[in-house]
Amino acid sequence: MEELKQKIIDEGKALNNDILKVDSFINNQVDPLLMMHIGEDIAEHYRDKGITKVAAIETSGIAPAIMTASALQVPMVIIKKHANKLVSGGLLQTEITSFTTGDTFELTVSPKFLKKDDHVLIIDDILANGEAIVGVIRLIRLAHATVAGSAVLIEKAFQPGRKKLEEAGVEVYSLTKIISMKKGHIEVE
Amino acid sequence: MEELKQKIIDEGKALNNDILKVDSFINNQVDPLLMMHIGEDIAEHYRDKGITKVAAIETSGIAPAIMTASALQVPMVIIKKHANKLVSGGLLQTEITSFTTGDTFELTVSPKFLKKDDHVLIIDDILANGEAIVGVIRLIRLAHATVAGSAVLIEKAFQPGRKKLEEAGVEVYSLTKIISMKKGHIEVE
Repeated sequence: MEELKQKIIDEGKALNNDILKVDSFINNQVDPLLMMHIGEDIAEHYRDKGITKVAAIETSGIAPAIMTASALQVPMVIIKKHANKLVSGGLLQTEITSFTTGDTFELTVSPKFLKKDDHVLIIDDILANGEAIVGVIRLIRLAHATVAGSAVLIEKAFQPGRKKLEEAGVEVYSLTKIISMKKGHIEVE
Repeated sequence: MEELKQKIIDEGKALNNDILKVDSFINNQVDPLLMMHIGEDIAEHYRDKGITKVAAIETSGIAPAIMTASALQVPMVIIKKHANKLVSGGLLQTEITSFTTGDTFELTVSPKFLKKDDHVLIIDDILANGEAIVGVIRLIRLAHATVAGSAVLIEKAFQPGRKKLEEAGVEVYSLTKIISMKKGHIEVE
C-alpha cells in the first residue's frame, strides 16, 4: 500500500535492528484518513471470504480494525492484553511473551463474542515474531471459532512471524513489508 | 442519540448501582456502524470549534474517537493507561484512581503530539466520577495545549463527573444520560 509505505519512509524511525517507531501515525498519534484507507484495503482483500468478526489486538490494532469492520459491516471484538494475570472469571485466556521486550501478557476475550459459527479476521499493527497473533489464533480455536486470516499494517519480513502463522495454517496479508532495518535506516518493499 | 439509547435499553446490563455493562457494543465487542454514527454526531456538535486533535482514552475511547477524528479530519492521540508506574522517559504523565474499582493508573502521552497550539477534544466511553477525563485535562494543560471540550457516549447523570468537569471549565457533551440504575434496571433519558 503506497500511502502507508510513504508514511513509513517519511515518519518511521528505526531505533535498532528490532525496534521500529511509528508512533506519529499508528501507535500514539493516529491518522484517521490513513486508517480508513487501510481498513478499505484489508476489507477488499478479505471480501467474500465469509468473515463474521474482526478481532483487534489491543491497543494499536483497534483503529485499523474498526475501519476494516466498518468496511466489511461486521462487529469488531477487542482482544485485551493484560499486563498481569489477575483476570476475572468466565474469560478465555492465553499467555504470550513478547520476543522483543520479554514482557508477558495475558490475552483475553469473552466467549460470548466468539462463537463456533464465527470466521474471524485478526488485525494487528506490526508483525515481527508473531507471538500476539499466534496467541489470538489459540483463543479463537479455544472458542471453537475459525480463523479466516490475518492482516497487519507492517510486516518485518526479516523476522519469523509470517512463517509461524503460515505453519499454523493462517494467511498473512501485510500492507507493507520491511526488508531490513538498522539504526536510522529502513528499507520498505 | 436515539440509536445509542436503544442499544443501551436492549443490550446494556446494570450489575448494581455502579457498574454498567455495555460490553456487547462498546467495550469488548464494538458495533462499527454505531461508532461511525457516534463519531459523526460528536463531530457535528464540535464542528467550527477549532479542534486540532481528538484525544482518546485507552481502550474504549479509541473506536469512537477515531470515527470522530475521521469526521473532523484531524489526528487522534491515544492517552495510554498504564497499570503500573514503569513508564519510559520523556512522557507527560499523571496518576488517576478509579472511584469505582480503586485501581490506580498512570495516564501518559508524548509531548510530541500535544503542542501549545493544539485545541483538544477529549473522548471517552462512560462518564461516572470523571477521574479519567480530569486526568486528561491535566495532561493537556501540562503540554500547554488547550481543552476544547469533552464528549462521552454515556453519562451516568447521578454521579458527579459532569459537575467536576464543568468546574474545571470543560464542556461535557454526552450522547445519552442514565438517570438511575440498579441491578437489572436502567433508566435512560
